[in-house]
Amino acid sequence: MYMQHDYNKEALELHRENKGKIEIGIKVPLANRDDLSRAYTPGVAEVCREIGKDKSLAYEYTLKANTVAIVTDGSAILGLGNLGPEAAIPVMEGKAAILKAFAGVDAFPICLDTQDTEEIIKAVKQLAPVFGAINLEDISAPRCFEIEERLRKELLIPVMHDDQWGAGTVSLTAFINAIKLRGIAKEEARVVLSGIGAAGVATARLLFAYGVKHIVFCDSKGIIHTDRDDLTKEKKELLAQSVADVKEGGLKDAVQGAHVFIGLSKPDVLTKEMVKSMAERPIIFALANPTPEIMPEVAHAAGAFIVATGRSDYPNQINNSLVFPGAFRGMLEARIPQFKTEMFVAIAEGLAQVVPDVSTEKILPSMFDEGVAELVSSIVKQFK
Amino acid sequence: MYMQHDYNKEALELHRENKGKIEIGIKVPLANRDDLSRAYTPGVAEVCREIGKDKSLAYEYTLKANTVAIVTDGSAILGLGNLGPEAAIPVMEGKAAILKAFAGVDAFPICLDTQDTEEIIKAVKQLAPVFGAINLEDISAPRCFEIEERLRKELLIPVMHDDQWGAGTVSLTAFINAIKLRGIAKEEARVVLSGIGAAGVATARLLFAYGVKHIVFCDSKGIIHTDRDDLTKEKKELLAQSVADVKEGGLKDAVQGAHVFIGLSKPDVLTKEMVKSMAERPIIFALANPTPEIMPEVAHAAGAFIVATGRSDYPNQINNSLVFPGAFRGMLEARIPQFKTEMFVAIAEGLAQVVPDVSTEKILPSMFDEGVAELVSSIVKQFK
Repeated sequence: MYMQHDYNKEALELHRENKGKIEIGIKVPLANRDDLSRAYTPGVAEVCREIGKDKSLAYEYTLKANTVAIVTDGSAILGLGNLGPEAAIPVMEGKAAILKAFAGVDAFPICLDTQDTEEIIKAVKQLAPVFGAINLEDISAPRCFEIEERLRKELLIPVMHDDQWGAGTVSLTAFINAIKLRGIAKEEARVVLSGIGAAGVATARLLFAYGVKHIVFCDSKGIIHTDRDDLTKEKKELLAQSVADVKEGGLKDAVQGAHVFIGLSKPDVLTKEMVKSMAERPIIFALANPTPEIMPEVAHAAGAFIVATGRSDYPNQINNSLVFPGAFRGMLEARIPQFKTEMFVAIAEGLAQVVPDVSTEKILPSMFDEGVAELVSSIVKQFK
Repeated sequence: MYMQHDYNKEALELHRENKGKIEIGIKVPLANRDDLSRAYTPGVAEVCREIGKDKSLAYEYTLKANTVAIVTDGSAILGLGNLGPEAAIPVMEGKAAILKAFAGVDAFPICLDTQDTEEIIKAVKQLAPVFGAINLEDISAPRCFEIEERLRKELLIPVMHDDQWGAGTVSLTAFINAIKLRGIAKEEARVVLSGIGAAGVATARLLFAYGVKHIVFCDSKGIIHTDRDDLTKEKKELLAQSVADVKEGGLKDAVQGAHVFIGLSKPDVLTKEMVKSMAERPIIFALANPTPEIMPEVAHAAGAFIVATGRSDYPNQINNSLVFPGAFRGMLEARIPQFKTEMFVAIAEGLAQVVPDVSTEKILPSMFDEGVAELVSSIVKQFK
């Protein structure tokens, strides 16, 4: 944990020295009156008139062609919870910097001072003219599902909640290589998914879309089953898709005999005894951040075959930065109208194939690998 | 007019080639996992936690310190009218580029897909967390007055409608030098102001604040006087401040014997006969864009002493780019809570003093003059 502490201090210094992480760059010359007459008045009036006649020309003449809004309400910042819109700025600036550095996509943070679902939907629709796509971020479940669904219907630009689809896609990538190394067919894999928030729901949807049949879901109240009367729309939908034989009980009951545990829940909920009760040589994705559901060394000591976490200081980091930069680049370059679940499955299958020297300690490519964003972008473009 | 035509074509090419004029720049290194651990997770969490405890730290750790939202609804784009939010993007990008190039201020275009006063106010308030100041732009009168007034009351960051205060301040700068060259005291100057939109109202307010007493106002229905029952709140307020002896009539009647004509209205409304009916050697500001109230050569032939327009191809261009870059820089650097009318008077007085070799053909500094933005910024900071 001493490394953690260092990063905290260094992060504060970095942010204070630079007053954040992004700035505005200028793409045209502004050195004299002639330059201004082209970039600003009087010449700019002609560009305005053209777009006034045909809105879609905003893609030809303005930043809309390459610009994403990173929209949050600050209600679910990282694993920190509801700290409000100002506290979310550093995460949104970080995503904007990553989008530019890894995929050449321009992005700007929109941190909204409202946590009302209808108000957020309305605000994003009002803001949309300048943007080519919307990245929803750190908005708490279950509001995030309705906001994404509604915006996809009501806007003409792509909308993606990255906490769902980014996290889900990277988890599926890791899952594909993990069951391959372990020698289990996707149709046979018995999966337990703990934590049915934004990332949990999307991960489950992607696992089903990939061909997984057998998932047992657990939330903070235990195993999700049809007799429970407190299930959200999303939980009911997921439950209906699984062929798993589900009974009452807790996580302890759910994991018995399972091949794969995927945790997107809370620190320390998985014990070494539970790991021992799973099928032989189980696969453990303990993705709670920064403290996972079980520490990798404990899971390995209990017999785990492969362990993945959200942390950069252990092998197999599940990090959605692998997906969103290339995904937005592909959507913008090909002017694809909307994200689809199948795209994310295809991205996961593509990424799973390009891991150099796959092993139990390396089931994922690195975002620093040459060509990763280009690969994701090219897969997305096939959906045009 | 052939130059005009060239700029139109060149502007379209420039905008198409570059897909707009601004992009996102990255201020921190992102070359390896260590860099990411400081700029993004896990280190960024500490920055979020700090701001979560004290919102004002967003000024220390994020782009809020130096970033302005340029907000429009596309209802009054340049002199083109209501073309909607997409058509406004090129102007807003242009302002963002100018803010960065001339004053080092970051700015981002917010082009809202609503023209409802209450919706605009709400949207700007919801967006405010990321921004250190708000520049309202190209929003039609009289809505622009209420929007600015309400946002100044309801937000904790500075708000300025540049079509009002930028245009007004540069007009006042030109006025100060023009009456000085003509040898008229401000208290004695008989002024006619034609066009009581955003720029007209602010120019009048600044003239009064500077010490001008005698202004006759004209709108599209003629001279503004107390017997009219169609006056807005702003027109009534301005009329009450003037000592001018006002009677019914049109612009033709208003200008008789006047020292100064300031037009912020429509092309070609001022004839050479009207100029001849003014006081000897009158001062003419014909600021309608791109075609002024009277062409400078016509005004001069009719006896005008000084002519100013909004055009770059004649002397004495009234261009608000002289003011807004430095004004926002000063507000952000000194964290001044709100704009005030007196600031703009002080800026105009300061700018009027730094014109090198003042003459009838040069009553204003150029935005390209060394130190102009710094001067404006330093004047603003005196109001801390």
